[in-house]
Amino acid sequence: MNGSAAPAYRRLSVEQRRTQLLAAAVDLFGHHRPEDVSVDDVAAAAGVSRPLVYRYFPGGKQQLYEAAMHNAADELRKCFVEPSQGAPTQRLAHALDRYLAFVDEHDAAYSALLRGGSVAETSRTGAIVDGVRRSAAEQVLLHLGAPDPGPRLAMMVRSWIASVEAVSLTWLDEGKQPPLPELRGWLVDHLTGLLVITATTDPETAGIAAAALALETPDSPAGELARRLAPIVEAVAHLLPDDDGRGMLGA
Amino acid sequence: MNGSAAPAYRRLSVEQRRTQLLAAAVDLFGHHRPEDVSVDDVAAAAGVSRPLVYRYFPGGKQQLYEAAMHNAADELRKCFVEPSQGAPTQRLAHALDRYLAFVDEHDAAYSALLRGGSVAETSRTGAIVDGVRRSAAEQVLLHLGAPDPGPRLAMMVRSWIASVEAVSLTWLDEGKQPPLPELRGWLVDHLTGLLVITATTDPETAGIAAAALALETPDSPAGELARRLAPIVEAVAHLLPDDDGRGMLGA
Repeated sequence: MNGSAAPAYRRLSVEQRRTQLLAAAVDLFGHHRPEDVSVDDVAAAAGVSRPLVYRYFPGGKQQLYEAAMHNAADELRKCFVEPSQGAPTQRLAHALDRYLAFVDEHDAAYSALLRGGSVAETSRTGAIVDGVRRSAAEQVLLHLGAPDPGPRLAMMVRSWIASVEAVSLTWLDEGKQPPLPELRGWLVDHLTGLLVITATTDPETAGIAAAALALETPDSPAGELARRLAPIVEAVAHLLPDDDGRGMLGA
Repeated sequence: MNGSAAPAYRRLSVEQRRTQLLAAAVDLFGHHRPEDVSVDDVAAAAGVSRPLVYRYFPGGKQQLYEAAMHNAADELRKCFVEPSQGAPTQRLAHALDRYLAFVDEHDAAYSALLRGGSVAETSRTGAIVDGVRRSAAEQVLLHLGAPDPGPRLAMMVRSWIASVEAVSLTWLDEGKQPPLPELRGWLVDHLTGLLVITATTDPETAGIAAAALALETPDSPAGELARRLAPIVEAVAHLLPDDDGRGMLGA
């Protein structure tokens, strides 16, 4: 990170030094499993001595790991912050593009943090993950116009976030296939589908879905999904009351 | 479990004794957090001495916990085994009824096992959870007629299983609301929705979805969902190419 350790040691303020060490820890824990990172690695990456690292992080590796995870969590939280304009599925696509880029960039940290069971895993790192989930859910619900959701809508969003995590881990396991835009498209469609399905039994979600769909346009992800779904309606014609299955759809 | 400890001690065979101790452990770990269960509790529940428990489980509490989790995992695996007849969504409803009844009955164990971070959590218990997920996915794919799925279909099923787990944990957190039949209905609809949505971009899933939908009937969960969805088609009319949004649906 810095070729000339000694001069940097003298010049940086306390805050700059802390920031520099944290950046080195974020980088190392982002690209390696926690068990493969040592305090010496952080010192070497920052071009400082091991005792200096301990002066800033007396808790050593565990404290560095948790600080790095807090930093990562803040970054992940920011991914879901998006201006409240345009089609909701387009906003979601932007947020997911940022989220998935983070997963791509910090693959080792993401995997270690979400899978748990690593040596550095504690109830505190578990709480960090829960905090990110809550923030993501709040942002999604904000864009749906439901900052104070009922139980069914809240459950729907939590369920979708669990899917995003599972899909992200699978994507990392499978050599980052399919390409990110495909993955993002599928995850956006997934939430659109859940919203519409939940709307068929939950009155609150029905109102939210109607308002969200009214903001969609033919060229938004929801518009594209609607066009791709149209031919499939024929495949369920035999499930509908009318003989040809069209009466109710056109009603 | 047995009021008269001494006679039971003499009468049971080695295998019977092991089964009895395991049953006591399954019951205790099923209803309490791992950190709240001791070897003494297992001994007391089985009406035997602490040394006898150690004779059968030399690894003590950790070994009892893992044995109980293996047992629970076997039970969970069996939930998804279902005859290959009838509408696929009806089969899925039966499997989910069993799975959710297990979650209801073994609430503490389910929560501890899936949340991780408990004192008894190890890479071995993590592997048990992964084994259950794999079995559940295999059964779902078997019923979809895709025992050897491509990556998109496999990802879809894994994503749904992650949602089932997240929803089950949320259900436990929220005092077991909504009632189980509602929860099961929503989870069945969720998979139906994912199948149809994934079918719009993945040719393999399109074939699987068409075959599965052909087996559905008007009174199956998919039939009920199709009827509830029909009115919502109107809400997306503005996203479809034709002015009134009906041309393509009726095509």
